[in-house]
Amino acid sequence: MTFIESLNAAWSRNNSLLCVGLDPDPEKFPSHLQGHPDGIFEFCKEIADTTADLVCCFKPQIAYFAARRAEDQLEALIAHIHEKHPGIPVILDAKRGDIGSTAEQYAVEAFERYGADAITANPYMGRDSVEPYLAYKDKGVILLCRTSNPGGSDLQFLDVGGMKLYERVARLVASEWNTTGQCALVVGATFPAEIARVRELTGDMPLLVPGIGAQGGDIAATVDAGRTKNGAGLMINSSRAILYAGKGKDFAEAARQAALATRDAINQYR
Amino acid sequence: MTFIESLNAAWSRNNSLLCVGLDPDPEKFPSHLQGHPDGIFEFCKEIADTTADLVCCFKPQIAYFAARRAEDQLEALIAHIHEKHPGIPVILDAKRGDIGSTAEQYAVEAFERYGADAITANPYMGRDSVEPYLAYKDKGVILLCRTSNPGGSDLQFLDVGGMKLYERVARLVASEWNTTGQCALVVGATFPAEIARVRELTGDMPLLVPGIGAQGGDIAATVDAGRTKNGAGLMINSSRAILYAGKGKDFAEAARQAALATRDAINQYR
Repeated sequence: MTFIESLNAAWSRNNSLLCVGLDPDPEKFPSHLQGHPDGIFEFCKEIADTTADLVCCFKPQIAYFAARRAEDQLEALIAHIHEKHPGIPVILDAKRGDIGSTAEQYAVEAFERYGADAITANPYMGRDSVEPYLAYKDKGVILLCRTSNPGGSDLQFLDVGGMKLYERVARLVASEWNTTGQCALVVGATFPAEIARVRELTGDMPLLVPGIGAQGGDIAATVDAGRTKNGAGLMINSSRAILYAGKGKDFAEAARQAALATRDAINQYR
Repeated sequence: MTFIESLNAAWSRNNSLLCVGLDPDPEKFPSHLQGHPDGIFEFCKEIADTTADLVCCFKPQIAYFAARRAEDQLEALIAHIHEKHPGIPVILDAKRGDIGSTAEQYAVEAFERYGADAITANPYMGRDSVEPYLAYKDKGVILLCRTSNPGGSDLQFLDVGGMKLYERVARLVASEWNTTGQCALVVGATFPAEIARVRELTGDMPLLVPGIGAQGGDIAATVDAGRTKNGAGLMINSSRAILYAGKGKDFAEAARQAALATRDAINQYR
């Protein structure tokens, strides 16, 4: 199954648009996992195991692993999710962007080494910087469009001939880059009007939406702006609010309750 | 010394604007290093050792290491360069770009784990995505501006109110982001007129220029367009043409000859 097919199936099977972002920060781990040699893997594994029936995908953020020499734990985590929770796609959040010959190396890293089902990528270097990922026909490529951070506007909101740069990116990806149906876009929840605009420009293209929870995005406005006609089309990411819902030995159960509440809050508005 | 101070000193000391890009591809290694468990480190170490007096900086490209689970060899390589060739700055070519909390993790990866002196970064997510790197006051941050690949024009050449997007990035970085003098820009050698334009917009800001050699950029045009008044200001990168100049046991000597010829060709036009 391709990434897009798995995502569609998971949306239905788990009745969920929730993506759990795996951004493991050992300083926030419960005390029994602090100093544990495989603490990052163990923490994320427990979160994945207790939330897998509530999500449409998982999204590990590679920076949190790389900052701590924990690439081996990231490999083990993705392998674990694929083995124990088949059908739940894993997005490697890496936001890579480089010329073709280097992007080929990043594609090997993401898809062959880590076995991710999709990667996030940066569109600034243009179409040929994205093609090496698209060459893996069963994988997804999720391009930054309108990001949730304050500085997102510095470039993305510039006017380029009657539309904003992020709108141009959305249109480029939808009309020119996505010839094989493998693409999706990142649009931050902090700007619901812009989610609606991207939805308008891209038809039913899946949108990865970070920014609810810790970053302050509104669930009702996000779903209302971004859902497709059949009430799907969104991967609404929550990381910190779920990962660190509890601080004790029962952190995974607290994460499950937070994930359940978030999934159900999202479903209210579909 | 800061990255910019080291770079200035290396420009003078080695009378060189040459940056050797370390993009190790084991398939292109001489046969005695193929299958070697630390072949990537050994190959790059020999290149560094035989060219260190001819360059102003080294630039390992992290994708080539990450695709082969060779992060430990990248750590060892940068440590080796710092120990044996003090004063030659090392740029980690990673082109990272993410929201602040994640960029903090990438900064730890680049500067604390790998000990790089500078990192390449993508400007698409705006100023707050770059600030965590700038928080390391002795480090350099080299932002993508006009890239050397064909698709570079897809976004970078869009008109944003009377200038191209890459010009706007150059102006933003020079006038707003570079308050601490830590910034530099990437401008591809394949577009000398655009190097000249970026030089005009950024004063004496250092420019990292990939694209000579395998990508076809012209040395004379590059130097003429990009040099500062004192004949410096450029890190002109060559990777494949130097790394793979020879195919036998004497590959490092062949690389030295190629580096020497490239340095001298550059110096002809300063």
